Amino acid sequence: MISDASQASGRYVPPGIDVRALTALLDGEYAEIRDLVRTNLSAHASVLEEAEELGVDEFRERVRALAVELATTGQTGMGFPKEYGGGGDIGASIAAFETLAYGDLSLLVKVGVQFGLFGGAILHLGTERHHRAHLPDLITGKLMGCFAMTETGHGSNVQALGTVATYDAARQEFVITTHGDAARKDYIGNAARHAELAVVFAQLEVDGKREGVHAFVVPIRVDGEPAPGVRIEDAGRKMGLNGVDNGRLWFDGVRVPREALLNRFAEVTPDGVYESPIENPGRRFFTMLGTLVQGRVSVGGGAINAAKVALAIATKYAVRRRQFEAAASESGEEQLLLDYGMHQRRLLPLLARTYALHFAQDVVRTQLHEVFSGNRSGDQGDDGQARRELESRAAGTKALGTWHATRTIQECREACGGAGYLAVNRFAALKADSDVFTTFEGDNHVLLQLVAKGLLTNYAHEFEDLDQLGMVRFVTGQAVETVVERASVHKLLERVRDLLPGGDEWDQEAGLLDPDYQLAMVRFREEHMLASLARRLKRGVDEGRDPGAVFSHVQDHVISVARAHVERLVLEAFVDKLRSLPDEEDAGSKAADNKPAGNMAALGLLCDLFALSTIESDRAWFMEHGRLTVQRSKTISREINNLCRKIRPLAGDLVDAWGIPPEMLRSPDLVG
Amino acid sequence: MISDASQASGRYVPPGIDVRALTALLDGEYAEIRDLVRTNLSAHASVLEEAEELGVDEFRERVRALAVELATTGQTGMGFPKEYGGGGDIGASIAAFETLAYGDLSLLVKVGVQFGLFGGAILHLGTERHHRAHLPDLITGKLMGCFAMTETGHGSNVQALGTVATYDAARQEFVITTHGDAARKDYIGNAARHAELAVVFAQLEVDGKREGVHAFVVPIRVDGEPAPGVRIEDAGRKMGLNGVDNGRLWFDGVRVPREALLNRFAEVTPDGVYESPIENPGRRFFTMLGTLVQGRVSVGGGAINAAKVALAIATKYAVRRRQFEAAASESGEEQLLLDYGMHQRRLLPLLARTYALHFAQDVVRTQLHEVFSGNRSGDQGDDGQARRELESRAAGTKALGTWHATRTIQECREACGGAGYLAVNRFAALKADSDVFTTFEGDNHVLLQLVAKGLLTNYAHEFEDLDQLGMVRFVTGQAVETVVERASVHKLLERVRDLLPGGDEWDQEAGLLDPDYQLAMVRFREEHMLASLARRLKRGVDEGRDPGAVFSHVQDHVISVARAHVERLVLEAFVDKLRSLPDEEDAGSKAADNKPAGNMAALGLLCDLFALSTIESDRAWFMEHGRLTVQRSKTISREINNLCRKIRPLAGDLVDAWGIPPEMLRSPDLVG
Repeated sequence: MISDASQASGRYVPPGIDVRALTALLDGEYAEIRDLVRTNLSAHASVLEEAEELGVDEFRERVRALAVELATTGQTGMGFPKEYGGGGDIGASIAAFETLAYGDLSLLVKVGVQFGLFGGAILHLGTERHHRAHLPDLITGKLMGCFAMTETGHGSNVQALGTVATYDAARQEFVITTHGDAARKDYIGNAARHAELAVVFAQLEVDGKREGVHAFVVPIRVDGEPAPGVRIEDAGRKMGLNGVDNGRLWFDGVRVPREALLNRFAEVTPDGVYESPIENPGRRFFTMLGTLVQGRVSVGGGAINAAKVALAIATKYAVRRRQFEAAASESGEEQLLLDYGMHQRRLLPLLARTYALHFAQDVVRTQLHEVFSGNRSGDQGDDGQARRELESRAAGTKALGTWHATRTIQECREACGGAGYLAVNRFAALKADSDVFTTFEGDNHVLLQLVAKGLLTNYAHEFEDLDQLGMVRFVTGQAVETVVERASVHKLLERVRDLLPGGDEWDQEAGLLDPDYQLAMVRFREEHMLASLARRLKRGVDEGRDPGAVFSHVQDHVISVARAHVERLVLEAFVDKLRSLPDEEDAGSKAADNKPAGNMAALGLLCDLFALSTIESDRAWFMEHGRLTVQRSKTISREINNLCRKIRPLAGDLVDAWGIPPEMLRSPDLVG
Repeated sequence: MISDASQASGRYVPPGIDVRALTALLDGEYAEIRDLVRTNLSAHASVLEEAEELGVDEFRERVRALAVELATTGQTGMGFPKEYGGGGDIGASIAAFETLAYGDLSLLVKVGVQFGLFGGAILHLGTERHHRAHLPDLITGKLMGCFAMTETGHGSNVQALGTVATYDAARQEFVITTHGDAARKDYIGNAARHAELAVVFAQLEVDGKREGVHAFVVPIRVDGEPAPGVRIEDAGRKMGLNGVDNGRLWFDGVRVPREALLNRFAEVTPDGVYESPIENPGRRFFTMLGTLVQGRVSVGGGAINAAKVALAIATKYAVRRRQFEAAASESGEEQLLLDYGMHQRRLLPLLARTYALHFAQDVVRTQLHEVFSGNRSGDQGDDGQARRELESRAAGTKALGTWHATRTIQECREACGGAGYLAVNRFAALKADSDVFTTFEGDNHVLLQLVAKGLLTNYAHEFEDLDQLGMVRFVTGQAVETVVERASVHKLLERVRDLLPGGDEWDQEAGLLDPDYQLAMVRFREEHMLASLARRLKRGVDEGRDPGAVFSHVQDHVISVARAHVERLVLEAFVDKLRSLPDEEDAGSKAADNKPAGNMAALGLLCDLFALSTIESDRAWFMEHGRLTVQRSKTISREINNLCRKIRPLAGDLVDAWGIPPEMLRSPDLVG
């Protein structure tokens, strides 16, 4: 709006950005911990070179040592209770992790494995006896552990894993056994070299009965050697993250005491009776898994920050690098890359989306903090609802955030040409290390199916036979949960119409830069896709077709619904953030040199660019569903080009506002 | 069509594929050389592990030794004249290079640098004195050389490079000097370690006058040490291709004899008179560069084959790997990945596009062979026209082929989950090594601008002031060439209408699987985009706006036009190939087990899938331009899902037909 005003006066005057104020806005309530991490990153910046120069063994040791060193500063223990030496602030622990992603990602993942996965499992699945026994030493890094869930035969389908823990009542022990190579634990971080303990997920068998997947604390290494009955293999060299020692584990009748069961949600009595406060086995399983949601929130946030590093380098290069002479230039000087329309189109929508995802990450981090800082007793009542919302949002933000990182890093590498290919310029490590983010902590496609599941659950009464037929299991790969909210397909379509206040024609009249129009568009898309998917599933079931085939036919719609849902959440997060900020004029803030006040206007441009480029990239769908005329679709593409030109002079400040320590960018020849 | 017939009988019966016959069809006339390369690849398969295990220095030596060893088999020298020890078959040299891309890509690029870039420059820019002096030894690999064109300050804009070669008539020598660090030669393969000679591109200065960029043979290393006046620096570790010793070169008044000028297109007489048969300096420059087009043809073909390796692994995995149980399965067995609709959608359109690009590569390789095997005297007359066509096609196929490889390798890695991240499973190397293919031998965006330039040249008379204003220079980053063909925008639009035989409504009636419909659609898109781009440029010029700004505004359209053009060529190549094949029924071939005959039907399905998914991914444009109704757009998406289901049972055979030596796939746990 400010930009429109300045245009009215004849020439576009870009808003002036107050970089420090923008950084403060982005850092939010976690500025302090983020600054601590920034300081630590700068202090240990040499790890970026060491990642290239050291051999695998040496680098693994270096990364371990660094993780332990970071622990002494408190940055890695923020999520643990103070009584055991932690910081007692879950939100801060995620913020610290996100910021650490500006640096070497092996170190990030090592920290994630040790303090997030291993430590998180002890904390959330265990009870006081486990906390007392393990938390103090694992928080300092003295005790290293691993999280042994994934198996070779079962990556995504955890419920079907093949390791078995049989209770031996006579000796009050569990006997843990790997049945066949498909059941070996695989890709387990910290397993190949450093872990002494493992949290092992296995099918619990008590008195001949299978009780589902449970977690056990199992010593796997004693004095550096594999514990008796444990076989350990190095998973070998990987595309990236070679500072993390991923390994494979086999258990051959390994005995652990009854107390090794992490017993927050289930217990086996000494004489062999299985007890759990959660009766439904599927629900119990998802409750246990749900406590581990912080891993997904962490990876999503880390990915978004890794994308920032790539964008900062490519943007700084594009505002310095000249190539091909400008025809009109008297000096014969070549033109800056970022003055080319195509270069703007390549980088600036990614910049806008990065800002949008940043604010979406704020929301999911806050939800995580609230759910886990409040009632931690289980998933009953409102708390259960909040947890499901959190899990869905975490899955969706992780999927979109990690895909965004893969895409952004690639585009930025290409935008830096051959120089982008040199290891010194960061893209090599960023690309190789972050690649697996789309897979670990839940494969992105599986996660989006999880999101769709939550949305479809609201329609479950439309297909009464659905669960019987195993349809929902197909949609989700997982047993169906409680139906939370009920709304008929019919009612939903009414709601869809209501989304567009002026009726069907409203969208044709509204201003493209009106956030209500943008929101109405992405809301309409989500609701329409969802209703249409529900109808397709129902039709298939009604016709008595094989549920597997029905699901396979609509699976691309399942994924599309979930994407549309998450993109709606992301846009809402951005718009909500803007609406929550005080008007700069009112607040009396004035940018220097009399440019129009500044940060709000810039964020507004970014939000518009994100919203319109989101609509543009799915404009075929909007046209197919009567929400976009051909003319308006073309107008949107032109408006995106306009927005890119307006943001272009701000680009340098916008990447500076992320506060990435300069040492993390490296790239001496690119960023100057 | 066969598939429709079989559907009419009630149930779809997939065609039976004769894998050996399909391999023979794909290998075409170059089966022999391809088999030689396959044999060599298998014999030296250990290089794939060595790429991971050896240090950079050792691996560089290993790759050099292997390149020399391959030379003894004749596979790397096919493109050189027989009189100097080559094979005298340019098409075969490209086919050999393409096939080598199934293996380690450092070796591929080392071979490309030595025999393609260095050897090609001596061959095509030099004359007999250079051939006699250097070809015999460089063909055996005894003499290693490098191609020193790119500078730090000028990657894409070669015409502006900063190295200067001044003729000293008194001593009949050229004096070569690097002026400032921006003019250092950068990323030069073979320079850091192995090259004794360099072909150096420099601004020729004779008697105080600049004559443009020319190439010189310069010794850079003597007995392993840098030659006097030459400074060499290692470019250091890269994202991939670490078996290639890329380096930087500075020249400080290095003197070479007058005969060091590669003088096929220009000569300096002993007393310092510059002479060239090509008067126009821009045209001379592009003629010189044009002789190096084989590098682009090679990289495009190599990229397409690298994509095949990734697809073969991911497809073989997807027909073996089960995950999540099928609801209807009595056995409780989990479902194969490739039976999931989404998994089909992820892999099979990429498979179809890989086949399409394979046939497009056949066309460009054949054109290269014909142009370079015929009159090699220059670019006059018809030969000039054929060369320009070849250069445009080579640029376009390289751009689309290398982007396809990047995208395909990424999708295949993700489709193999965590296992795809382990180095043993090939994706790590494929991804890291092939990444720079989108940049070297011409940045893809710059190449597409080159393609667009060729198309726009046909409109040049529409804007008479265009060259004056430097507009075309903007479009291309290069001086404008001769206008070859003239057609007004108005006439073009008439031609566009003629493309759709039944008039505007024809497309609404035609069968989606009619190749004429598919071709008409992509032809319409190209012509319409081009006419529209020409109008926009003209309007900008007519309004007297700054050409730089006009170009920047339309640059995304420039890229879109070029993409549309190349996709049209690719589809035509596929359709032409199918039409050229004998009908299997007529030819009396019958697949075993009485399945419908076989290979033609399968290729037909792939061609349909490629055509429709190409239209689908740009369906917004077709709707915006009145060529696709909403209903038909949705029908296309459904038909793509149908085609995926039909191709699904053929997928294993379709990747086997590429004849990739099994050792090149590695991935013991994925491909079984």
